[in-house]
Amino acid sequence: MHTVGRHLIAEYYGCDCALLNDPRAIRTRMLEACDRIEVTVVGEVFHQFSPQGVTGIIAIAESHLSIHTWPENGYAAVDIFTCGDLDPRPGCELLGQTLQADSLRMQEIVRGIADDVSQHRHLLPEDVQLMSHVAPVRKVQQSANSGDGQ
Amino acid sequence: MHTVGRHLIAEYYGCDCALLNDPRAIRTRMLEACDRIEVTVVGEVFHQFSPQGVTGIIAIAESHLSIHTWPENGYAAVDIFTCGDLDPRPGCELLGQTLQADSLRMQEIVRGIADDVSQHRHLLPEDVQLMSHVAPVRKVQQSANSGDGQ
Repeated sequence: MHTVGRHLIAEYYGCDCALLNDPRAIRTRMLEACDRIEVTVVGEVFHQFSPQGVTGIIAIAESHLSIHTWPENGYAAVDIFTCGDLDPRPGCELLGQTLQADSLRMQEIVRGIADDVSQHRHLLPEDVQLMSHVAPVRKVQQSANSGDGQ
Repeated sequence: MHTVGRHLIAEYYGCDCALLNDPRAIRTRMLEACDRIEVTVVGEVFHQFSPQGVTGIIAIAESHLSIHTWPENGYAAVDIFTCGDLDPRPGCELLGQTLQADSLRMQEIVRGIADDVSQHRHLLPEDVQLMSHVAPVRKVQQSANSGDGQ
Protein backbone atom coordinates (compact mmCIF):
# COMPACT_ATOMS: atom_id res chain seq x y z
CA MET A 1 0.00 0.00 0.00
CA HIS A 2 1.30 3.45 -0.92
CA THR A 3 1.00 6.26 1.58
CA VAL A 4 0.30 8.72 -1.20
CA GLY A 5 -3.32 9.75 -0.99
CA ARG A 6 -5.47 11.88 -3.25
CA HIS A 7 -8.19 13.66 -1.30
CA LEU A 8 -10.98 15.28 -3.27
CA ILE A 9 -13.11 17.79 -1.41
CA ALA A 10 -16.26 18.62 -3.32
CA GLU A 11 -19.25 20.87 -2.74
CA TYR A 12 -22.43 20.27 -4.74
CA TYR A 13 -25.00 23.03 -5.20
CA GLY A 14 -28.53 23.04 -6.54
CA CYS A 15 -29.06 19.33 -5.95
CA ASP A 16 -32.44 17.62 -5.90
CA CYS A 17 -33.70 18.40 -2.38
CA ALA A 18 -35.89 15.32 -1.93
CA LEU A 19 -33.05 13.08 -3.04
CA LEU A 20 -30.70 14.67 -0.49
CA ASN A 21 -33.09 13.63 2.29
CA ASP A 22 -33.36 9.98 1.17
CA PRO A 23 -30.65 7.83 2.79
CA ARG A 24 -31.34 4.87 0.49
CA ALA A 25 -30.95 7.00 -2.60
CA ILE A 26 -27.79 8.58 -1.22
CA ARG A 27 -26.33 5.18 -0.35
CA THR A 28 -27.04 3.87 -3.86
CA ARG A 29 -25.31 6.85 -5.45
CA MET A 30 -22.30 6.66 -3.15
CA LEU A 31 -21.87 2.95 -3.94
CA GLU A 32 -22.14 3.76 -7.65
CA ALA A 33 -19.31 6.25 -7.15
CA CYS A 34 -17.29 3.49 -5.47
CA ASP A 35 -17.87 1.27 -8.48
CA ARG A 36 -16.89 4.04 -10.86
CA ILE A 37 -13.50 4.54 -9.24
CA GLU A 38 -13.07 0.80 -8.65
CA VAL A 39 -12.49 0.76 -4.90
CA THR A 40 -13.18 -2.05 -2.42
CA VAL A 41 -15.86 -1.34 0.20
CA VAL A 42 -15.02 -2.64 3.70
CA GLY A 43 -17.69 -0.93 5.82
CA GLU A 44 -20.34 1.77 5.86
CA VAL A 45 -22.53 3.89 8.09
CA PHE A 46 -25.54 5.95 7.00
CA HIS A 47 -27.65 8.15 9.25
CA GLN A 48 -30.75 10.24 8.67
CA PHE A 49 -31.16 13.37 10.72
CA SER A 50 -34.35 14.95 11.99
CA PRO A 51 -35.91 17.07 10.63
CA GLN A 52 -33.74 16.52 7.54
CA GLY A 53 -30.27 15.69 6.27
CA VAL A 54 -28.26 12.56 5.61
CA THR A 55 -24.72 11.57 6.56
CA GLY A 56 -23.13 8.63 4.81
CA ILE A 57 -19.60 7.29 5.11
CA ILE A 58 -18.13 4.36 3.25
CA ALA A 59 -14.84 2.86 4.43
CA ILE A 60 -12.87 1.46 1.51
CA ALA A 61 -9.64 -0.50 1.35
CA GLU A 62 -8.16 2.64 -0.21
CA SER A 63 -9.43 5.10 2.53
CA HIS A 64 -13.00 6.54 2.48
CA LEU A 65 -15.88 8.39 0.88
CA SER A 66 -18.22 10.63 2.86
CA ILE A 67 -21.28 12.74 2.20
CA HIS A 68 -23.24 15.20 4.33
CA THR A 69 -26.41 16.72 2.91
CA TRP A 70 -28.42 19.85 3.65
CA PRO A 71 -31.66 19.24 1.70
CA GLU A 72 -33.01 22.64 2.68
CA ASN A 73 -30.17 24.25 0.72
CA GLY A 74 -29.82 21.67 -2.06
CA TYR A 75 -26.24 21.38 -0.84
CA ALA A 76 -24.02 18.34 -0.27
CA ALA A 77 -20.43 18.14 1.01
CA VAL A 78 -18.51 15.15 -0.33
CA ASP A 79 -15.03 13.78 0.32
CA ILE A 80 -13.33 11.06 -1.68
CA PHE A 81 -9.98 10.07 -0.21
CA THR A 82 -8.10 7.33 -2.04
CA CYS A 83 -4.59 6.00 -1.71
CA GLY A 84 -2.62 4.05 -4.27
CA ASP A 85 -2.85 4.75 -7.97
CA LEU A 86 -6.58 5.36 -8.14
CA ASP A 87 -8.18 8.45 -9.66
CA PRO A 88 -11.07 9.68 -7.47
CA ARG A 89 -12.27 12.33 -9.92
CA PRO A 90 -14.65 10.19 -11.98
CA GLY A 91 -16.47 9.41 -8.72
CA CYS A 92 -16.93 13.11 -8.00
CA GLU A 93 -18.13 13.77 -11.48
CA LEU A 94 -20.61 10.90 -11.38
CA LEU A 95 -22.04 12.20 -8.08
CA GLY A 96 -22.56 15.60 -9.67
CA GLN A 97 -24.85 13.94 -12.18
CA THR A 98 -26.61 11.51 -9.87
CA LEU A 99 -27.25 14.12 -7.16
CA GLN A 100 -28.68 16.28 -9.97
CA ALA A 101 -26.43 19.15 -8.97
CA ASP A 102 -26.45 22.44 -10.85
CA SER A 103 -22.77 22.95 -10.09
CA LEU A 104 -19.88 21.52 -8.16
CA ARG A 105 -16.77 22.90 -6.57
CA MET A 106 -13.81 20.57 -6.20
CA GLN A 107 -10.35 20.78 -4.69
CA GLU A 108 -7.72 18.09 -4.54
CA ILE A 109 -5.17 17.73 -1.77
CA VAL A 110 -2.28 15.31 -2.00
CA ARG A 111 -1.67 13.64 1.34
CA GLY A 112 1.08 11.48 2.82
CA ILE A 113 3.73 11.34 0.11
CA ALA A 114 5.47 7.99 0.43
CA ASP A 115 9.10 9.06 0.10
CA ASP A 116 8.75 11.87 2.62
CA VAL A 117 7.01 9.68 5.12
CA SER A 118 9.58 6.91 4.88
CA GLN A 119 12.33 9.46 5.44
CA HIS A 120 10.43 10.97 8.39
CA ARG A 121 10.54 14.37 6.70
CA HIS A 122 7.58 16.56 7.53
CA LEU A 123 5.10 17.49 4.86
CA LEU A 124 5.60 21.15 4.12
CA PRO A 125 2.95 23.53 2.83
CA GLU A 126 4.54 23.50 -0.63
CA ASP A 127 4.10 19.73 -0.82
CA VAL A 128 0.36 20.12 -0.96
CA GLN A 129 -1.28 20.55 -4.31
CA LEU A 130 -4.47 22.49 -4.05
CA MET A 131 -6.69 22.89 -7.05
CA SER A 132 -9.98 24.68 -7.07
CA HIS A 133 -12.46 23.99 -9.78
CA VAL A 134 -15.97 25.34 -10.14
CA ALA A 135 -18.00 23.92 -12.97
CA PRO A 136 -21.60 23.59 -13.97
CA VAL A 137 -22.86 20.02 -14.03
CA ARG A 138 -26.05 19.97 -16.06
CA LYS A 139 -24.85 22.58 -18.52
CA VAL A 140 -21.67 20.78 -19.53
CA GLN A 141 -23.13 19.36 -22.70
CA GLN A 142 -24.63 22.68 -23.78
CA SER A 143 -21.60 24.90 -23.25
CA ALA A 144 -18.60 22.92 -22.16
CA ASN A 145 -16.26 25.87 -21.75
CA SER A 146 -18.46 28.38 -19.93
CA GLY A 147 -18.66 29.05 -16.24
CA ASP A 148 -15.38 27.48 -15.16
CA GLY A 149 -13.67 29.02 -12.20
CA GLN A 150 -9.94 29.21 -11.54
CA MET B 1 -28.10 23.44 11.53
CA HIS B 2 -25.57 25.75 9.91
CA THR B 3 -24.07 24.76 6.58
CA VAL B 4 -20.77 26.30 7.60
CA GLY B 5 -18.30 23.53 8.20
CA ARG B 6 -14.75 23.53 9.51
CA HIS B 7 -12.72 20.71 8.01
CA LEU B 8 -9.37 19.93 9.61
CA ILE B 9 -7.00 17.80 7.59
CA ALA B 10 -4.14 16.51 9.70
CA GLU B 11 -1.09 14.32 9.11
CA TYR B 12 0.64 12.73 12.09
CA TYR B 13 4.25 11.56 11.83
CA GLY B 14 6.43 9.47 14.10
CA CYS B 15 3.49 7.85 15.87
CA ASP B 16 3.72 4.69 17.99
CA CYS B 17 3.70 1.94 15.32
CA ALA B 18 2.11 -0.79 17.45
CA LEU B 19 -0.65 1.57 18.51
CA LEU B 20 -1.40 2.44 14.86
CA ASN B 21 -2.09 -1.24 14.19
CA ASP B 22 -4.48 -1.70 17.12
CA PRO B 23 -8.09 -0.93 16.11
CA ARG B 24 -9.31 -0.93 19.72
CA ALA B 25 -6.68 1.58 20.76
CA ILE B 26 -7.43 3.74 17.71
CA ARG B 27 -11.16 3.63 18.41
CA THR B 28 -10.63 4.67 22.03
CA ARG B 29 -8.49 7.63 20.99
CA MET B 30 -10.91 8.75 18.28
CA LEU B 31 -13.81 8.65 20.75
CA GLU B 32 -11.71 10.65 23.22
CA ALA B 33 -11.23 13.24 20.46
CA CYS B 34 -15.03 13.29 19.98
CA ASP B 35 -15.46 13.95 23.69
CA ARG B 36 -12.86 16.69 23.62
CA ILE B 37 -14.66 18.64 20.91
CA GLU B 38 -18.07 17.79 22.38
CA VAL B 39 -19.72 16.19 19.36
CA THR B 40 -22.52 13.61 19.25
CA VAL B 41 -21.60 10.19 17.84
CA VAL B 42 -24.30 8.66 15.61
CA GLY B 43 -22.41 5.76 14.00
CA GLU B 44 -18.98 4.24 13.44
CA VAL B 45 -17.03 1.76 11.37
CA PHE B 46 -13.54 0.42 12.14
CA HIS B 47 -11.57 -1.99 9.98
CA GLN B 48 -8.19 -3.66 10.37
CA PHE B 49 -6.21 -4.37 7.25
CA SER B 50 -3.86 -7.25 6.57
CA PRO B 51 -0.91 -7.26 6.98
CA GLN B 52 -1.32 -3.96 8.84
CA GLY B 53 -3.18 -0.66 9.05
CA VAL B 54 -6.44 0.55 10.53
CA THR B 55 -9.26 2.64 9.10
CA GLY B 56 -11.75 4.20 11.45
CA ILE B 57 -14.65 6.52 10.72
CA ILE B 58 -17.04 8.05 13.21
CA ALA B 59 -20.23 9.69 11.97
CA ILE B 60 -21.26 12.54 14.25
CA ALA B 61 -24.32 14.75 14.30
CA GLU B 62 -21.95 17.54 13.23
CA SER B 63 -20.36 15.61 10.24
CA HIS B 64 -17.47 13.11 10.78
CA LEU B 65 -14.03 12.11 12.00
CA SER B 66 -11.82 9.67 10.09
CA ILE B 67 -8.42 8.07 10.54
CA HIS B 68 -6.27 5.91 8.28
CA THR B 69 -3.02 4.51 9.65
CA TRP B 70 0.19 3.22 8.10
CA PRO B 71 1.95 1.55 11.05
CA GLU B 72 4.98 0.72 8.92
CA ASN B 73 5.60 4.46 8.53
CA GLY B 74 4.37 5.65 11.92
CA TYR B 75 1.97 7.78 9.87
CA ALA B 76 -1.74 8.54 10.32
CA ALA B 77 -4.06 10.67 8.18
CA VAL B 78 -6.91 12.24 10.15
CA ASP B 79 -9.92 14.36 9.17
CA ILE B 80 -12.20 16.17 11.56
CA PHE B 81 -15.11 17.82 9.79
CA THR B 82 -17.56 19.70 12.02
CA CYS B 83 -20.44 22.03 11.27
CA GLY B 84 -22.04 24.55 13.56
CA ASP B 85 -20.05 26.55 16.04
CA LEU B 86 -17.70 23.79 17.18
CA ASP B 87 -13.92 24.07 17.19
CA PRO B 88 -12.33 20.84 15.90
CA ARG B 89 -8.74 21.84 16.74
CA PRO B 90 -8.60 20.55 20.32
CA GLY B 91 -9.52 17.13 18.92
CA CYS B 92 -6.58 17.23 16.49
CA GLU B 93 -4.22 18.32 19.22
CA LEU B 94 -5.38 15.60 21.58
CA LEU B 95 -4.83 12.96 18.89
CA GLY B 96 -1.28 14.20 18.42
CA GLN B 97 -0.63 13.36 22.05
CA THR B 98 -2.57 10.10 22.25
CA LEU B 99 -1.12 8.72 19.00
CA GLN B 100 2.29 9.61 20.45
CA ALA B 101 3.16 11.58 17.32
CA ASP B 102 6.48 13.37 16.94
CA SER B 103 4.85 16.02 14.77
CA LEU B 104 1.63 16.93 13.07
CA ARG B 105 0.72 18.91 10.00
CA MET B 106 -2.71 20.52 9.94
CA GLN B 107 -4.74 22.51 7.46
CA GLU B 108 -8.21 23.90 7.87
CA ILE B 109 -10.71 24.34 5.09
CA VAL B 110 -13.97 26.21 5.56
CA ARG B 111 -16.78 24.50 3.72
CA GLY B 112 -20.33 25.39 2.79
CA ILE B 113 -20.82 28.98 3.97
CA ALA B 114 -24.46 29.44 4.89
CA ASP B 115 -25.19 32.76 3.24
CA ASP B 116 -23.62 31.74 -0.04
CA VAL B 117 -25.45 28.46 -0.15
CA SER B 118 -28.80 30.03 0.59
CA GLN B 119 -28.22 32.51 -2.23
CA HIS B 120 -27.14 29.70 -4.57
CA ARG B 121 -23.88 31.49 -5.18
CA HIS B 122 -20.96 29.20 -5.95
CA LEU B 123 -18.11 28.91 -3.50
CA LEU B 124 -15.15 30.60 -5.08
CA PRO B 125 -11.50 29.75 -4.48
CA GLU B 126 -11.05 32.89 -2.38
CA ASP B 127 -13.82 31.75 -0.05
CA VAL B 128 -11.67 28.91 1.20
CA GLN B 129 -9.38 29.53 4.10
CA LEU B 130 -6.38 27.27 3.95
CA MET B 131 -3.95 27.22 6.81
CA SER B 132 -0.92 25.02 7.02
CA HIS B 133 0.69 24.35 10.33
CA VAL B 134 3.59 22.06 11.11
CA ALA B 135 4.42 21.63 14.76
CA PRO B 136 6.24 19.21 16.99
CA VAL B 137 4.00 17.38 19.43
CA ARG B 138 6.22 15.90 22.13
CA LYS B 139 8.60 18.83 22.18
CA VAL B 140 6.00 21.47 22.87
CA GLN B 141 6.62 21.50 26.61
CA GLN B 142 10.39 21.73 26.16
CA SER B 143 10.53 24.54 23.60
CA ALA B 144 7.11 25.90 22.86
CA ASN B 145 8.25 28.32 20.16
CA SER B 146 10.66 26.19 18.14
CA GLY B 147 10.01 24.23 15.01
CA ASP B 148 6.75 25.83 13.97
CA GLY B 149 6.11 25.98 10.26
CA GLN B 150 4.21 28.62 8.40
